Amino acid sequence: MMKELGYYNGQWGPLETMTVPMNDRAGYFGDGIYEAALAHNGVIFALDDHLRRLWRSADKLRIELRWTQDEMRDILYDMLSKVEPGDTLVYWQVTRGTALRNHAFPNGVPANLWITLKPITLGDPRHRLRLITVEDTRFLHCDIKTLNLIPNVMAAQLAAEAGCDESVFHRGEVVTECAHSNISILKDGRFITHPTDNYILPGITRARLLDACAEVGIPTEERTFTLAELMDADEVIVSSTTKGGVLAGEIDGQAVGGRAEAVFARLQAAYTARYERETAK
Amino acid sequence: MMKELGYYNGQWGPLETMTVPMNDRAGYFGDGIYEAALAHNGVIFALDDHLRRLWRSADKLRIELRWTQDEMRDILYDMLSKVEPGDTLVYWQVTRGTALRNHAFPNGVPANLWITLKPITLGDPRHRLRLITVEDTRFLHCDIKTLNLIPNVMAAQLAAEAGCDESVFHRGEVVTECAHSNISILKDGRFITHPTDNYILPGITRARLLDACAEVGIPTEERTFTLAELMDADEVIVSSTTKGGVLAGEIDGQAVGGRAEAVFARLQAAYTARYERETAK
Repeated sequence: MMKELGYYNGQWGPLETMTVPMNDRAGYFGDGIYEAALAHNGVIFALDDHLRRLWRSADKLRIELRWTQDEMRDILYDMLSKVEPGDTLVYWQVTRGTALRNHAFPNGVPANLWITLKPITLGDPRHRLRLITVEDTRFLHCDIKTLNLIPNVMAAQLAAEAGCDESVFHRGEVVTECAHSNISILKDGRFITHPTDNYILPGITRARLLDACAEVGIPTEERTFTLAELMDADEVIVSSTTKGGVLAGEIDGQAVGGRAEAVFARLQAAYTARYERETAK
Repeated sequence: MMKELGYYNGQWGPLETMTVPMNDRAGYFGDGIYEAALAHNGVIFALDDHLRRLWRSADKLRIELRWTQDEMRDILYDMLSKVEPGDTLVYWQVTRGTALRNHAFPNGVPANLWITLKPITLGDPRHRLRLITVEDTRFLHCDIKTLNLIPNVMAAQLAAEAGCDESVFHRGEVVTECAHSNISILKDGRFITHPTDNYILPGITRARLLDACAEVGIPTEERTFTLAELMDADEVIVSSTTKGGVLAGEIDGQAVGGRAEAVFARLQAAYTARYERETAK
């Protein structure tokens, strides 16, 4: 059983030994899309949602997927069976193919499937995150989960250097999302989150939190909100596949939230219950 | 002697046989920078300019280059000596390193150097290009020559499908550059080109054309110009390392330029003379 596994077009082995062709278009254009999901008890959580989003990304970038969703699911589970049990981060990406570098699409070249699996220790869901704010200078296709992630890398590095957990992107006054999470607020009993347009990734955890709100009777608004609203929110919620939904306690060194813990606790409990139910053995 | 050569951190061989680690950050973040230059008569044209720009890109993305410019030059010439003589496209990129996927920079990991060499047949400099226009939805770091090139790929594909040579990006009414070239206009005897801010790549051919303008007495203006000015220009000039400076004849199916051929001929002659001089045996 391996700890970290790498897979590339049917070949697999310990991740650190795996190689890919130099001419894979990921290497010189970042020309691909990806997904990352949590496996718990041997079950990949919300996998259908992830597959659906991957197909959507592929459609937007006109990458031809040469698998059915069932075939891809089978490959992921086959690889998952080869690593040590325990919580696993299942990451996979599809790139446009392997060819001599040329911007336009290569002809008659199949897409490549990359998978990496690694053990993951989930954070304490009660730990409040520390955030910084960073101007959002990314491209206008943030709804597509692509491998073009340099601005996200740079923002995450700034957060790490500030001793923080995440960066909050904003375009001028408008908060969009984080470097690798979505962000939402609770205000006066309502859950407010950026609409799913081209400025944010349609996060699967974000969608699950909206579902959880409906379940426990928290009204929701999908609308933009400002930095001022963020700083003045009753609670600030950061969400991602690996974190689930968690609260922030500080942004740019200023305390935030802390005024709707009970509301958030109901929301988090509903989200967690669903996670446990769907990943039950 | 090889036709197409690939190099990775000291290993080299026929390009199609070369592989790189799956964990190179190029593969999942596009986390790197690149340059491409023309070799003619065994001389890499404007190599100092390319090296200087690579160092600038590295500085902007905080990638630590572990070579001196002289060392990198020596590696490039060493590889060039292994391929068949003739015009060669010398492409190289530096990626942030090899590590398990994590957005923030990895610690203590050296940068990776990739090189690919391939023969190139230069186009006819008198051939007028056919262009299309595409809304510029890229990130706000277009001055950095990064591997995050999906919008450029998509725009180049649209051009190819329209039977055209290049796509002209514009942000609203303002023309920025092309998918893999700069763009400038001649109007009333003046050479007008977008300033080198964060919306365009500071093209080396663009800078050489500005030098050539000075040499032959064509006044220049580095300022933004609009789509209307583009369509109404006396000539439209597209420039890149592989093309040099060439004229466009058509944009979105409409004829453009054709009213300052003599001015352009002086400019192109000065550019070409310098190219021939600097790459003389």
